[in-house]
Amino acid sequence: MLTDVQNSKDKRGIAVNKVGIKNLSYPIAVLDKKKSLQHTIAHINMYVDLPHYFKGTHMSRFLEVLNEYRGEISIVKFPDILRKIKHVLNANSASVEMEFPYFIEKTAPVSRKKSLMEYVCYYNGTIKNKVRNDKFKKVSDLKSDTFSAGIEESEESVIKIGVKVPINTLCPCSKEISKYGAHNQRGVVSVSIEFSKLIWFEDIIEDVESCASSPVYPLLKRSDERFLTEHAYENPRFVEDVVRCVAGILKENKDIKWYKVEAENFESIHNHNAYAMIEG
Amino acid sequence: MLTDVQNSKDKRGIAVNKVGIKNLSYPIAVLDKKKSLQHTIAHINMYVDLPHYFKGTHMSRFLEVLNEYRGEISIVKFPDILRKIKHVLNANSASVEMEFPYFIEKTAPVSRKKSLMEYVCYYNGTIKNKVRNDKFKKVSDLKSDTFSAGIEESEESVIKIGVKVPINTLCPCSKEISKYGAHNQRGVVSVSIEFSKLIWFEDIIEDVESCASSPVYPLLKRSDERFLTEHAYENPRFVEDVVRCVAGILKENKDIKWYKVEAENFESIHNHNAYAMIEG
Amino acid sequence: MLTDVQNSKDKRGIAVNKVGIKNLSYPIAVLDKKKSLQHTIAHINMYVDLPHYFKGTHMSRFLEVLNEYRGEISIVKFPDILRKIKHVLNANSASVEMEFPYFIEKTAPVSRKKSLMEYVCYYNGTIKNKVRNDKFKKVSDLKSDTFSAGIEESEESVIKIGVKVPINTLCPCSKEISKYGAHNQRGVVSVSIEFSKLIWFEDIIEDVESCASSPVYPLLKRSDERFLTEHAYENPRFVEDVVRCVAGILKENKDIKWYKVEAENFESIHNHNAYAMIEG
Amino acid sequence: MLTDVQNSKDKRGIAVNKVGIKNLSYPIAVLDKKKSLQHTIAHINMYVDLPHYFKGTHMSRFLEVLNEYRGEISIVKFPDILRKIKHVLNANSASVEMEFPYFIEKTAPVSRKKSLMEYVCYYNGTIKNKVRNDKFKKVSDLKSDTFSAGIEESEESVIKIGVKVPINTLCPCSKEISKYGAHNQRGVVSVSIEFSKLIWFEDIIEDVESCASSPVYPLLKRSDERFLTEHAYENPRFVEDVVRCVAGILKENKDIKWYKVEAENFESIHNHNAYAMIEG
Repeated sequence: MLTDVQNSKDKRGIAVNKVGIKNLSYPIAVLDKKKSLQHTIAHINMYVDLPHYFKGTHMSRFLEVLNEYRGEISIVKFPDILRKIKHVLNANSASVEMEFPYFIEKTAPVSRKKSLMEYVCYYNGTIKNKVRNDKFKKVSDLKSDTFSAGIEESEESVIKIGVKVPINTLCPCSKEISKYGAHNQRGVVSVSIEFSKLIWFEDIIEDVESCASSPVYPLLKRSDERFLTEHAYENPRFVEDVVRCVAGILKENKDIKWYKVEAENFESIHNHNAYAMIEG
Repeated sequence: MLTDVQNSKDKRGIAVNKVGIKNLSYPIAVLDKKKSLQHTIAHINMYVDLPHYFKGTHMSRFLEVLNEYRGEISIVKFPDILRKIKHVLNANSASVEMEFPYFIEKTAPVSRKKSLMEYVCYYNGTIKNKVRNDKFKKVSDLKSDTFSAGIEESEESVIKIGVKVPINTLCPCSKEISKYGAHNQRGVVSVSIEFSKLIWFEDIIEDVESCASSPVYPLLKRSDERFLTEHAYENPRFVEDVVRCVAGILKENKDIKWYKVEAENFESIHNHNAYAMIEG
Repeated sequence: MLTDVQNSKDKRGIAVNKVGIKNLSYPIAVLDKKKSLQHTIAHINMYVDLPHYFKGTHMSRFLEVLNEYRGEISIVKFPDILRKIKHVLNANSASVEMEFPYFIEKTAPVSRKKSLMEYVCYYNGTIKNKVRNDKFKKVSDLKSDTFSAGIEESEESVIKIGVKVPINTLCPCSKEISKYGAHNQRGVVSVSIEFSKLIWFEDIIEDVESCASSPVYPLLKRSDERFLTEHAYENPRFVEDVVRCVAGILKENKDIKWYKVEAENFESIHNHNAYAMIEG
Repeated sequence: MLTDVQNSKDKRGIAVNKVGIKNLSYPIAVLDKKKSLQHTIAHINMYVDLPHYFKGTHMSRFLEVLNEYRGEISIVKFPDILRKIKHVLNANSASVEMEFPYFIEKTAPVSRKKSLMEYVCYYNGTIKNKVRNDKFKKVSDLKSDTFSAGIEESEESVIKIGVKVPINTLCPCSKEISKYGAHNQRGVVSVSIEFSKLIWFEDIIEDVESCASSPVYPLLKRSDERFLTEHAYENPRFVEDVVRCVAGILKENKDIKWYKVEAENFESIHNHNAYAMIEG
């Protein structure tokens, strides 16, 4: 029988806020808006808290829970994953962060050519016991059948989703002061939200693209390029305009409890970026 | 006369929390513990808030303030930089984030050979008016001679410093259960603090290295390698042990108001990392 | 009718060796050794040459070819993709680079627990006309039905595959000179090959892991950790040993025409890496 | 006396092409065109070959040579560094790669405001004995006073320098087909050269910027922004145009023996990049 060093007593009296595994790359399947499963690959961080009296946590269990759920990860199942981790690691809190590429079919505006566009998305969640339970049994005595899915009354949870949307922005100042032309560039808008009723990545992306000088696409023919060039010139936007426009839309949505909107422009006249952020 | 588009009115009624420049690479000089200037290169983010009634901020001014101060950046001058940015950008708050490599001469434990070791350090600061001033003049009417250095009573500021310290950690469990050997690996400990009395990077680094299985060095001869191998084997540490040890030291320091300690191990038996964090 | 600027004459008389798209992220399916399709996401670069008399290439066509083939990409189909690109872009040569994560089920050595391990793999290929064809028609006159799959006699092609294998290495010098213990660390071995008969990623990975102090795994229980710790201590390896061992195996394989083996150790006693390379 | 494991015999009969250290971060001083020393921080790789009969190389010596030369690294001293490494590591060849940020003062085109712009530069060099010397003494018997600076007749060396220049490019096709505006974006041009007579980074950068739709700057006022916007609109460039223009200039320079020019555009209408390359 091998000694369980992690399970031994720690006498320093200092609890650890988070302990776990970081930067694990793992294949998962995510439910998309059309209710089909999208295969993707996530970068995953998984943590629990560690009471002051235990020396270490049991990191292999994070993998075991992940293996159980990876076949279908959706925002609906996310609370179960969090509870299961809290349960099998015998902890008072558990957090999971998953970032993954998510592909959506885009149709070019004029030629109607279709292609797939990548949006980097994430799920971040935390579950916590409202009252700390300090009478944990030895982990080896845990019966896994005491586990129940969902969130219980004695627990609280926060789950956030987010998406990064590449866009084109054309500078209003450059357009106004120049005889012709206007500098424009690729930018990326990051939106994070907490909601009371499910919101799809697809819907956030649509909101963001409506606030850009123009969306970006993987596959464009010349007729599309002309359309987007002119559309961007007609819709100049500072990073400040973009975050205000997106925040304005999210603020109106009763199902959104919290949001953070960031816009970053890879300025075409500078080698640094322009940035704006609104949190509300 | 070119139109000042940024200075025009915005009617959406939404203030922007942060707007500015991101990921600027710039040479600076930093004061080190020996009171000499160390030349380094920083990645810099600089932001102000933007009231709801202005359309945009004036990004070139960030560079102008930076040019003024870059010859000597120290924690003592940092509040002045923040105030100056708040002043010339006519804002209620200003934030600056600077991350830069910082080199310290290390002496190998046995051979006494000297070489330079890189530690990534940062300064992060925010200054804010306690009462929002909403009667800003047009920026063009600002007189720069109204600027005074330091923090005034009507303002509050938060300044944090941080450093990443590479270390070696040897697994206590692996040592305990194996007949010989023990897996060990490079790890990195990130410490952030807020203080009431100046603390040098050099001192934080010393604290962290004392909590590792062993420090790491750029230049080691065989006698040093033997010393460090045996030292690490005699001092096994989980990531949990490392953050508890560092947090224990920082907690005792009356000059530290807040700290966050993170340890991340590039596990030699896995392709993902082990992680632990304590905030206090 | 929109002007085809790309198709206009260029008078500088300078041919462009490579022109195309870079860093496209796209979902693909790759054939694995068990003959099933693995869904993954590739970072893709696609290039053609451009004769001196054309001003530009037609970048949207790269996407159109990719859309056609992405449902099943295997080393068997790779030559067709290259030819198709050369054909629809009216070029004398075409190159494609695809790098993607590839997952293999690993069984822990003692507990027999299963989990998925990520290996970053790539396909790199180039196809070229042996005799340059300088009488290209206007691209708009191309008939796509003239395309034929495979490599023709008038063409030559080079196709390479590669894989990065994370391993554990334990330092022979540290073991030899120390009373107990030995520094070890995560390392990564990159193997690239050109072959005359198909070789699977799975086989290369097996070869590399046999040359390590020990393989690494995503999911290990304590019994596995003991096994690997002792196994690594019994099998110390410099980076030099690792590349020699792998090169020794590849040299014996008659189906391999060219190989390059690199090993890089994230040294646990330094903050820089140790590196070795053999090309043959 | 500690065993010199690296110096022991290897019986596999396989020579190692390159062995050394990688990704070392170190402060250096570089000579600039104005003959003053610029402090910067380099990422450094240093390698030697290893004959088939030695088990390992002695990695600490790379650091010792670096320490000796880091106070002034210039293209004039680079051959000495290479020879010294070859000498103290008792090898037939040595290679050094150094990549570092290099700052040049830029003056904005209209306001004449000055600020510093970062260009990532590199030195890459290799030195080799024309006839392999296979009768090496034990390294411990080496007398360091046999070292002589410069390249000898029995040796050959290749030294390359390179620089990455951020630029703005405006799409000729987008301009031609659109009623107004034209998509433009930040791009980066990488130039590598081998020369017979010294060429400064400053000169290569000037050549590249003359081939862009417009240069980029850290600090621009509105008058500069108007100038650059109009200048870019008047000078549309594909990536193909940019590499042809730079290659055209380098080809004319008798002091340049070899060059490679790459241009990569962070397309503002796509989320992938456009790329072109000429080698000559």
